[in-house]
Amino acid sequence: MPRGAQTFALTACEASARIADGTLSAEAYTAACLERIEALDRELGAFAHLDPDHALAQARARDEWRRQGRPLGPLHGVPVAIKDIFDTADYPTECGSPILAGRRPGTDATVVRKLREAGAVIIGKTVTTEFAYYHPGKTRNPRNRDHTPGGSSSGSAAAVAAQMVPLAIGSQTNGSVIRPAAFCGVFGIKPSRGLISRAGALPLSRTLDHVGAFARSLEDLALILDVVVGSDPADPDSEPFAARDFRRSAGEPRSAAPRLALVRTPVWDKADPEARAALEAVAERLHAREVDLPDSCRAAWDAHRAIMAAEMAFNLGKFVERGGEVSQRFRDLIAEGSKVTAAHYLAAVRDAQRHAEAVGRIFDDGIDAIITLSAPGTAPLGLGTTGDPSFCTFWTLVGVPSINLPLIDGANGLPIGVQLCGALRHDARLMRTARAVVAQLAGA
Amino acid sequence: MPRGAQTFALTACEASARIADGTLSAEAYTAACLERIEALDRELGAFAHLDPDHALAQARARDEWRRQGRPLGPLHGVPVAIKDIFDTADYPTECGSPILAGRRPGTDATVVRKLREAGAVIIGKTVTTEFAYYHPGKTRNPRNRDHTPGGSSSGSAAAVAAQMVPLAIGSQTNGSVIRPAAFCGVFGIKPSRGLISRAGALPLSRTLDHVGAFARSLEDLALILDVVVGSDPADPDSEPFAARDFRRSAGEPRSAAPRLALVRTPVWDKADPEARAALEAVAERLHAREVDLPDSCRAAWDAHRAIMAAEMAFNLGKFVERGGEVSQRFRDLIAEGSKVTAAHYLAAVRDAQRHAEAVGRIFDDGIDAIITLSAPGTAPLGLGTTGDPSFCTFWTLVGVPSINLPLIDGANGLPIGVQLCGALRHDARLMRTARAVVAQLAGA
Repeated sequence: MPRGAQTFALTACEASARIADGTLSAEAYTAACLERIEALDRELGAFAHLDPDHALAQARARDEWRRQGRPLGPLHGVPVAIKDIFDTADYPTECGSPILAGRRPGTDATVVRKLREAGAVIIGKTVTTEFAYYHPGKTRNPRNRDHTPGGSSSGSAAAVAAQMVPLAIGSQTNGSVIRPAAFCGVFGIKPSRGLISRAGALPLSRTLDHVGAFARSLEDLALILDVVVGSDPADPDSEPFAARDFRRSAGEPRSAAPRLALVRTPVWDKADPEARAALEAVAERLHAREVDLPDSCRAAWDAHRAIMAAEMAFNLGKFVERGGEVSQRFRDLIAEGSKVTAAHYLAAVRDAQRHAEAVGRIFDDGIDAIITLSAPGTAPLGLGTTGDPSFCTFWTLVGVPSINLPLIDGANGLPIGVQLCGALRHDARLMRTARAVVAQLAGA
Repeated sequence: MPRGAQTFALTACEASARIADGTLSAEAYTAACLERIEALDRELGAFAHLDPDHALAQARARDEWRRQGRPLGPLHGVPVAIKDIFDTADYPTECGSPILAGRRPGTDATVVRKLREAGAVIIGKTVTTEFAYYHPGKTRNPRNRDHTPGGSSSGSAAAVAAQMVPLAIGSQTNGSVIRPAAFCGVFGIKPSRGLISRAGALPLSRTLDHVGAFARSLEDLALILDVVVGSDPADPDSEPFAARDFRRSAGEPRSAAPRLALVRTPVWDKADPEARAALEAVAERLHAREVDLPDSCRAAWDAHRAIMAAEMAFNLGKFVERGGEVSQRFRDLIAEGSKVTAAHYLAAVRDAQRHAEAVGRIFDDGIDAIITLSAPGTAPLGLGTTGDPSFCTFWTLVGVPSINLPLIDGANGLPIGVQLCGALRHDARLMRTARAVVAQLAGA
């Protein structure tokens, strides 16, 4: 039996252990999460599609499975929320646009299929901005409802922050996991390019799209990563990775303090003085050494913009051409992207590779992780914007893994996100470093 | 000692066996090739850079190596000619353009390095059209000097056809190996995309550039393929392949006649009636069954054009921008490519993938190879054009391996090329099929 009202607040690791040992049923845990959603979501607006009966039916099936003594997956009976750009066989997938209202793809995206295979309860679909670009959905920030939760994975970040679910799936093409994680005060990861299949997700940009995840602990991030990573023939850019056991390797003890590099990046001046000072103080406590990106990296933000606009025009231009109901901002992006020449696009892709090589050299120099800001400051006031992704842009372009750590609170009571970035394809090492950083700051 | 005047006419397999068993020296063989070049090349113009003393010095070093009892590579002492878009440490690499006159890169392209490691004598650099596009070089067709040798690997095809060298390296972005092989009457192969590293070759189009080879026998093509294939970190698109021993696997006996598909493609009407009839007669003798490409493949030629123009504008536009001496045709291509939008380019790349899947389905149906024409007919009269590559365009776009078989002579005495295309990454199977086809036609 769940321990009363706080069942919804369990982490996924705690809940899955209790479900496995029989001290908590999947049904009770799912019911607790659904009650929490019922209590809060009218105001927070994290969910786009929710079917409590269907969620409970999944949970009961998980319980029946366990009663039969069958083997349990790592997420057996754990509710997971899915950003509404990932196809689901049992819920609509509308991508935050009225054009796709009522769309039911009838199949699961690869990540959703993998979650089900691991025993998860797909509890519902979370609000995304329109086509995962800037135009906001209905979601409010659980930490202060007058503020944006960030975007584009707004609902996934808010649902985890409000303890509606322990885990949620999001995606990042610019700053759509790390920024809302920072604004809502949860852990979020955008893994290395190619680590998680994008098959069955709305394609914005083949070069830039990444699947990511939200949780309230690093252990929970490792738990869900173990389930969703892996190459997939349906995503030709997904790659096999050597390290697959994130939970174990993220938990391995470290012999020495992690070696961190404080990288301010050329957008540093856009950050609030408070956020800059707070991050620099943390970096100092962690004995991070200051490292500058090469001057040539200043061009990376324009390269990202050219690639994103061009690829989104290619993938999503049809929604504008067909005269559908789209926001002006989205329409402007498609118009901008349609004008990008192939030669300009190819130069941006080439330059991205060069920036990635420059970042690789930082890690070659014995650095475990880069420490920087996740966003220019706390979540902006108002729901008309999702805030500035530019502190994530560079790391998305070069494809390295990034984690948001909710370690600092601003004077307004809202969180300031600390971003750690690791070497490409060294996601497990980044997880290990993040764990050491959290321990070091907690112990100081 | 060489057997008199015909030493130059040896195949690479024959010569390497005799060099290995000591009945021919690398020096004598190279000298025989150099004499042949000396006798013919003033008129044929196959070579752009030749240094007889340096070639003989390489050959003598090979002989000395053998005298010391050291292990011999598969091409030990065999002269190979290299298209002048591949970097060579010891010769200029001018890419057929006065803009690059005297350019000495100082390093070897990966294929050249592999040839040297296999014991080859890099005898000289062969004429390419300007930047491996259409504007012709000085080369004439050895079969009739008033006719084009084809392009862009004009010199490599002519040098092998004229028995100046047993082997030569070329490249194909549209029809630059198969077409000159057809016009000059030699065997030529454009292997699967990714089979041979392009590192150190002039990049025209990352999507379309392939390294290829010319020889006077299929066994010789297999011999050089065994040396030059393989993934290379310096070419991120090069891939590891399972089958590496082309010479052995191409020689394996077949239990049944190869199953061929006659594919006319949408450009069939561009072919001369004589060539069409000759190819159809051959296909009938081989019991090929007629297979049509899906109608959607009609768009492939435009897709190829968009990709090639855009990527060449990206890679080579600088030569026009700097106001260098370029042909009008090259200038027009760059202007055309500069106007291609990224969205159009990305759609062409996506469509190419779909065409490749359509071709894959032909092979799924139990077909060993597609049989079609290599070119619309025999080599056109005159040296102002290199002929029409459109019979190669589709197969280059989809990346499948293609071989030219010099099996038919036209009424004018010039060869008509038979093109065999295999399934992607089944290059060894295509070689085996080609061998069976040659045997079948010889025995009939």
